[in-house]
Amino acid sequence: MKRKDALFEFLLRMGDNTLVLGHRISEWCGHAPVIEEDIALANTALDLIGQTQLWLGLAAEIEGKGRDADALAYLRDAWDFRNLLLVERPNGDFGKTLMRQFLFDAFQSVLLARLLRSSNRQISEIAEKTGKEVAYHLERSSGTVVRLGDGTAESHGRMQAALDDLWSYSGEMFTGDAVDATLARAGIAPEPRELRAEWTATVGSVLASATLMPPGDDFAHLGGKTGEHTEHLGFILADMQFLQRAYPGAEW
Amino acid sequence: MKRKDALFEFLLRMGDNTLVLGHRISEWCGHAPVIEEDIALANTALDLIGQTQLWLGLAAEIEGKGRDADALAYLRDAWDFRNLLLVERPNGDFGKTLMRQFLFDAFQSVLLARLLRSSNRQISEIAEKTGKEVAYHLERSSGTVVRLGDGTAESHGRMQAALDDLWSYSGEMFTGDAVDATLARAGIAPEPRELRAEWTATVGSVLASATLMPPGDDFAHLGGKTGEHTEHLGFILADMQFLQRAYPGAEW
Repeated sequence: MKRKDALFEFLLRMGDNTLVLGHRISEWCGHAPVIEEDIALANTALDLIGQTQLWLGLAAEIEGKGRDADALAYLRDAWDFRNLLLVERPNGDFGKTLMRQFLFDAFQSVLLARLLRSSNRQISEIAEKTGKEVAYHLERSSGTVVRLGDGTAESHGRMQAALDDLWSYSGEMFTGDAVDATLARAGIAPEPRELRAEWTATVGSVLASATLMPPGDDFAHLGGKTGEHTEHLGFILADMQFLQRAYPGAEW
Repeated sequence: MKRKDALFEFLLRMGDNTLVLGHRISEWCGHAPVIEEDIALANTALDLIGQTQLWLGLAAEIEGKGRDADALAYLRDAWDFRNLLLVERPNGDFGKTLMRQFLFDAFQSVLLARLLRSSNRQISEIAEKTGKEVAYHLERSSGTVVRLGDGTAESHGRMQAALDDLWSYSGEMFTGDAVDATLARAGIAPEPRELRAEWTATVGSVLASATLMPPGDDFAHLGGKTGEHTEHLGFILADMQFLQRAYPGAEW
């Protein structure tokens, strides 16, 4: 696989993760259980959309076909998206949204720490810029998972149900393919499987404090990284892209 | 108000009601509680989309600006839609979907009977063609409302909750404006308020058999008929129009 093609794919994966998750949590705007959480989620969404501009901006530059970050975000269809299936999962209740956020934040945090040492300077710069935000996201989502997991019987039950439901979407974070192998050889990005031990340690310690038990089953849903998505992504894109599709080139 | 403009508005109201409700119930496809109901809902959706082609087809002809029914369905934005707020209500559970269907079927049935005598021959022909389908829809939705309303404590409770929730969206069916007045004077369509007594009789007798009690409050949400919609319509259009917006002029 050509390094340039692998790099483009990798950058889409990074940018599509933050774009789709950012859109998902923006759906909470005005609906969170308390106003403090509403604002926190909206801020996290804004951080993720900001990160998307960096990742997809670089992807567009690498592609070199005249598309920009907006064109990649708003004018691709589902099969051209490369996000993990985890981030397109429906929000469910507030606990499920935070559990999804926590599992992703822990992954992103481990990955960005490795990307600081990327042989690609633009990538290491983005990792540095976004790493601080992600460290804060992880602090918040860990704290909430602990408070709700080790909370009332009701909140504990909901958090355990969220974990049971989302666990099978965590394995995809650690599966690799030719894209990953090509970038690992060039020192650009780590092999995903190398991230698993640290992620498991981080996640395990938080879940223990939260009195939550990860399911024993390690079955993993796969497909998002290579463009095979669940039906949820299509509905996300329909909402997210409506304005640009209905009013092409609209500016404000 | 010019008769031609009033006629165009009226036809949009007719076609947008069936289009939006048809889309709403198509969302059940593959999700209904039993396969018989799944197929029945899909068939009702198909009937309503078929009726839409007749109403919006005539609207396009009256407008005479080169748009066809597809352009009206897929290329207008929310503020140009003229459907009742009732039909854009979220599906909720199966009982709520059927209650919404029943309230609308009863209205459509009374209205179409009057449109049989429209001074506009094209309208009376559409009323004749679609009236038989609507009579069958009403038979089905009435029967389901009675079975579920006069069913278990659980189903009764859900149907009463559905009625309580949807009732305030029924009043819009009987409000009139300059469009209605213009068409009434020309003998093209009745004043909406004239339909209320018959609708109330039909609905009242079914609800009585269903042991359901209409709320005493006659507050009515208004706006849909004049293009002021709830946020739900935007999401419906984003889904419904995605294909045509993303792939303009696509054929198959």
